[in-house]
Amino acid sequence: MSKVIAQLSISLDGFYAGPRDDEPNWFKSTEAAGFFRVTRWVTEAMAWRDRQHLAGGEQDVHSEIVAESFERPGAYVMGRRMFDGGERPWGEEPPFRNPVFVVTHRERERLERLGGTSFEFVTDGLESAIEQARAAAGGKEVAIAGGGTIIKQALELGLLDEIELHIVPVILGAGQRLLDVDLDVREGLELVPERTVATPEVTHIRYRVEGRKPLVLDDRGGKYPGLGEETA
Amino acid sequence: MSKVIAQLSISLDGFYAGPRDDEPNWFKSTEAAGFFRVTRWVTEAMAWRDRQHLAGGEQDVHSEIVAESFERPGAYVMGRRMFDGGERPWGEEPPFRNPVFVVTHRERERLERLGGTSFEFVTDGLESAIEQARAAAGGKEVAIAGGGTIIKQALELGLLDEIELHIVPVILGAGQRLLDVDLDVREGLELVPERTVATPEVTHIRYRVEGRKPLVLDDRGGKYPGLGEETA
Repeated sequence: MSKVIAQLSISLDGFYAGPRDDEPNWFKSTEAAGFFRVTRWVTEAMAWRDRQHLAGGEQDVHSEIVAESFERPGAYVMGRRMFDGGERPWGEEPPFRNPVFVVTHRERERLERLGGTSFEFVTDGLESAIEQARAAAGGKEVAIAGGGTIIKQALELGLLDEIELHIVPVILGAGQRLLDVDLDVREGLELVPERTVATPEVTHIRYRVEGRKPLVLDDRGGKYPGLGEETA
Repeated sequence: MSKVIAQLSISLDGFYAGPRDDEPNWFKSTEAAGFFRVTRWVTEAMAWRDRQHLAGGEQDVHSEIVAESFERPGAYVMGRRMFDGGERPWGEEPPFRNPVFVVTHRERERLERLGGTSFEFVTDGLESAIEQARAAAGGKEVAIAGGGTIIKQALELGLLDEIELHIVPVILGAGQRLLDVDLDVREGLELVPERTVATPEVTHIRYRVEGRKPLVLDDRGGKYPGLGEETA
């Protein structure tokens, strides 16, 4: 069965974008300033430029990782705010080239675009959008395209099988956090790193999501015997 | 000249310990539950066990990293709360085996311990403690031992040359954050990964600290010409 996957660039302190502000031109907002910093590694990658019909770019490991992220999904799930921001700039030939299911409260007719992209508007929630995407994915993966809010929601609801984080070596200090998941104080959401690609610009780590598990008070290797029971 | 270094285990969402609570037995507190989870990889490492006079342990890459963290410093700087919590459990032969400078508001006489550890109480601030540690380090590095608060303070004040993060693949959702640094919204604190050791249990990344730099609004690879000026 298709896996549900996501990937996102975050700062070392966990932000995928800067804080929202009142700047009317989004490209000059504090939100964009943080977003541009954490996605800077993408814009010089040949695979990204190619998909945007831009010349040039580096054929390096970052480009391979971008290419992979384009190849694996057979369908996408997207948040409403990302769609609203992208609808115009993506133009007639958006970079998805697969069916996209937009989670929204507003009904709207399906849009067909060039190059294999369509947008279907789903008003009965994220799980329904994932099911519809799975049916459309033809055995390939279902990718939660973003934004960060819907990826966080999928993680919180246990709907994600895998998440790849592109951890950018910068501390932003403020902004929008991807991993701000609501958990009980005595549990953790466990993951397992399955592939790490280390570079000076960014550390790409692909995690399998294991799920919530109780935190355990260990006995510090035998130094404090008597501890070690579960706390949940 | 000695570098000022630090290393700390954090969860994927940036916490080095769980949230503080009113539990009188620290070992059963929510703070400890988070701390124990992110430092679990340490307790089975032979180098750590050996230093605590415990038998057994694994002679693996984690143990090599622990051994390195013991070998590099010639002196330590420590926060007052870490010292208070450790003074009794560390006993007569604490694991530091070097001079330790404790940043505190309370004057106290220097303590001599077995195995090369001494504790000197510094009441005129972090920078002074670092200078005293540098003088005592004999050309080796000065390590900020912890806790997280004083490491964060050193990072914020631009006093750290290097930080090694042991990023543990768990989301805790709440607790005490290491990287919650106070920055201007249009600047980032830049780092460069210098060594990454990837394992299923933890991703060890050693960063060189570059310092604060303005965030730049790039032109998204030429897609939005006219952008690209600095915003600061």
